[in-house]
Amino acid sequence: MSTLDSNAIAILGGTGDQGLGLALRFAAAGRPVRIGSRKEERALAAAEEVRGKVRGADVTGHENAEATRRAEIVILSVPFEHTAPTVKGLTAALAPGQILVSMGVPLATAIGDGPVRTVGVWQGSCAELVASLAPDGVHTVSAFQNVPAHRLQDLPHAVECDVIVSGDKAPRERVMELCKLIPSVRAVNGGPLANARYVEAWTALLIGLTVRYKVPEGMGFRLTGLPE
Amino acid sequence: MSTLDSNAIAILGGTGDQGLGLALRFAAAGRPVRIGSRKEERALAAAEEVRGKVRGADVTGHENAEATRRAEIVILSVPFEHTAPTVKGLTAALAPGQILVSMGVPLATAIGDGPVRTVGVWQGSCAELVASLAPDGVHTVSAFQNVPAHRLQDLPHAVECDVIVSGDKAPRERVMELCKLIPSVRAVNGGPLANARYVEAWTALLIGLTVRYKVPEGMGFRLTGLPE
Repeated sequence: MSTLDSNAIAILGGTGDQGLGLALRFAAAGRPVRIGSRKEERALAAAEEVRGKVRGADVTGHENAEATRRAEIVILSVPFEHTAPTVKGLTAALAPGQILVSMGVPLATAIGDGPVRTVGVWQGSCAELVASLAPDGVHTVSAFQNVPAHRLQDLPHAVECDVIVSGDKAPRERVMELCKLIPSVRAVNGGPLANARYVEAWTALLIGLTVRYKVPEGMGFRLTGLPE
Repeated sequence: MSTLDSNAIAILGGTGDQGLGLALRFAAAGRPVRIGSRKEERALAAAEEVRGKVRGADVTGHENAEATRRAEIVILSVPFEHTAPTVKGLTAALAPGQILVSMGVPLATAIGDGPVRTVGVWQGSCAELVASLAPDGVHTVSAFQNVPAHRLQDLPHAVECDVIVSGDKAPRERVMELCKLIPSVRAVNGGPLANARYVEAWTALLIGLTVRYKVPEGMGFRLTGLPE
């Protein structure tokens, strides 16, 4: 029987570029990481990759539902079009008090169009879609949309990004603490979950800038005027 | 008979906080500025204020249509709900080849709600609304939405913001040159005009952050990873 660990961080879709980047950063900060995937063998391979790069890391691989049962905070790092099916598949695995972190962006790639445009989400944003599907008592928080995967994976270098975190106060503050595990990241209180729509849309603009300016390592942003 | 000056910059709504801030910055950079307002006396007063702060500035005040006739580049710095009526009122004053700069944001204040939320614009953004109403041959470019008025007006200090400029290539590049007149501003090629929707929405998020973090001078952003 698996046990929920309040110190562990589950990353569903942790085999993708951005999920793997977060796994590396959290493992490097000494936190237990539970990588989830639809296929256990892919999660096991990703966990092995992280352990190879971060000596002594407590990183394991699981099917999504099993990873979810093992960590209080569960980060959804799946493509937008897999978000709703993934959350629906976790109904039995999620327990009240857990925090679901939405980092998805409704890029128009979901409908075969390009990543510099978005599709409209009935609920207002990917994060609100997640919240609408999460079981009662599970908190949804929006974060990490604008941190480029390449910079996350490049452990020797700082990512030089601010992360805007939106959601209810208590779970939002938990996720803001997570952000601070990544060197140089500033966690910014983005207010209510509905503000995720601004942050998600910004990703599509940043992707366009990255292409236009030929910056393969990705672009991020820093707020100016933010009090220390 | 007024003559169009390719060096001059018209700022309609130049009596408001942000328009006045731009007028000060462009005047300080030595450019002729034509401040427009619905009421000529308010424009005259704003022009006098700028001349009082920038020695030797070539700044004059006019009704909106007259200011429009005097400058190749016309910046719309009016509240969102005045945007469509203002552009409709300029049909006779605008000539092909002129550039209309949209800096409006569809804040929900337009419908009596708060400035941390936006209203949906049928055309996609305030900038595309402007483009839909501009006479044939007039170019619409989106810029300056995210530069706080207080920082613009504080001439001794750098504004420390990036400005994302969207629109067709030739007029966009003209407006990017304008941005560079403001010390420390970086002009960023934001691609097609439709991308204005991302930049406009970001303003509502920044306003919320400004309130939440109690930063009366306003917050902006810098992209990280932008090539020099």
